[in-house]
Amino acid sequence: MTLPPSARTTVRRDDRAAYDRQTIQSILDEAFYAHVGFVSEEAPFVIPMLHARIDETLYLHGGPAARIMRTLKAGPEICVTVTLLDGLVLARSAFHHSANYRSVVVFGRPTPVTDLAERRAVLDAYTDKLVPGRRPHLREMTDKEVRGTVVVSVPLAEASAKVRSGGPVDEPEDTELDIWAGVIPLALTAGAPIADPLMRPGIPRPAHVDRIGR
Amino acid sequence: MTLPPSARTTVRRDDRAAYDRQTIQSILDEAFYAHVGFVSEEAPFVIPMLHARIDETLYLHGGPAARIMRTLKAGPEICVTVTLLDGLVLARSAFHHSANYRSVVVFGRPTPVTDLAERRAVLDAYTDKLVPGRRPHLREMTDKEVRGTVVVSVPLAEASAKVRSGGPVDEPEDTELDIWAGVIPLALTAGAPIADPLMRPGIPRPAHVDRIGR
Repeated sequence: MTLPPSARTTVRRDDRAAYDRQTIQSILDEAFYAHVGFVSEEAPFVIPMLHARIDETLYLHGGPAARIMRTLKAGPEICVTVTLLDGLVLARSAFHHSANYRSVVVFGRPTPVTDLAERRAVLDAYTDKLVPGRRPHLREMTDKEVRGTVVVSVPLAEASAKVRSGGPVDEPEDTELDIWAGVIPLALTAGAPIADPLMRPGIPRPAHVDRIGR
Repeated sequence: MTLPPSARTTVRRDDRAAYDRQTIQSILDEAFYAHVGFVSEEAPFVIPMLHARIDETLYLHGGPAARIMRTLKAGPEICVTVTLLDGLVLARSAFHHSANYRSVVVFGRPTPVTDLAERRAVLDAYTDKLVPGRRPHLREMTDKEVRGTVVVSVPLAEASAKVRSGGPVDEPEDTELDIWAGVIPLALTAGAPIADPLMRPGIPRPAHVDRIGR
C-alpha cells in the first residue's frame, strides 16, 4: 500500500522518496524518538519525544503538566519527523560528502486518546517497542498511572519517507585521485546494562535485557 | 558563561535544565544532525539537517535548489533542535520507564553567509566535525562548489539544553520487587568502513577513517 503524496509530503528529490506504508512504518518502528514540531504565536517549536505506532496510527505521550502535552491536547497542526542516521559518506571533495539516512515526516492533528483501555494498549506498545519482551516482567500499571498519562494519536495518513543509501557520488574525474572514499556506517548501539543500585541483591539480568545490551 | 533563558527557552523541569554555553556547545558538537523547524502557511515543518558550529554561531547548509534552503535564505523564525539519546531507563513499572538524553533547542532567524571566505570556513568546519583529520586529504573545494552551496548562520543567543541522566525513579515501594531495573546505555556507533568500489586498488585506509570506523 502506498500513501498518495500531498503537496507537503512530496519529496523533491525523486531518487530519495518513498511513500509505501512498509518503508514508513519500519522507519517509525526502528527509531526510538521523534522530533515534534508545532507553531506557537507564529513561531516554530521542535521537541524530542518518544513515539509508538499501532497499525496506521502514531502515538505521543507525556505527563499532563508538560507544556508539550497541553499543546498537543489542543489538536494543533503538527509535524512529526524521525531520522535514522545510517552512515557518513566520505567523498573525494568536501563538496560531495554526504550522509546516509532514513527519515519519515508525518503531518496531522493530534487527538487525545480518552478511552483508558486504548490508552493502556498504547502504553503497552511503548514498552514493547523500547524493550521487547519486558512487559510481562513489570509491575502492572495502575489505573491511576494510566489516567495520569496523556496520550494523543496522529493518523498516518499524510506521511512520506526519504532515504539516502550507498557510496559517495563524486565528480567522475575525482575518482582517479589517490583519496580513500567510502562509507562509515553508523547505528545507535547498546552498551553494557547498568543495574539500578537500589535493586535488592540476587536479581538476575533477564534475557530481554541481555538481548539489547552487551 | 550562561545564556539568560527567554520565555521559550525556559525548561519547565528545573532539574533537567542547562543554560551554560559549554553544555549547549558540547551537545551541538557531538550531534551529527539537527531537526530544523519552520512555519509555512501557518503549518509546522521539521526537516533533518547536518549542522556545524563555530564559536557562538550555528550553521546550516544545502544546495540552492533544496526547498529548505530557499526557505532558510528568507530568514524566517526557526527552531533548531538536536538530541542525543544516551540510554533507555528501565523501571519496575511501565509508567516510570524513561530515556536518558541530552538535547539543545536554539531559536533564531537564519542569515545567509554571503562572504565566500566565511562560507569556505564553515564548510571546512563541517568536514572537521564529521571526520576529524580528513580535510587535508581532500581535493580542494573549487570556488564554483563554494558559490554553489547555500550556508546560513544562526546566532547561539537564544538557546537552552535539557539533560536527563541516571537510573530509574520508581515508586519507593516498587524497589522491593523482584524486577531487574537499570539503564541500557545507547550511543551512535561506527561500524566497519565500506570502501568505495570505484577507488583504484592500493589506496590504504587512512588513520582518520580508522579512528572512527572499526
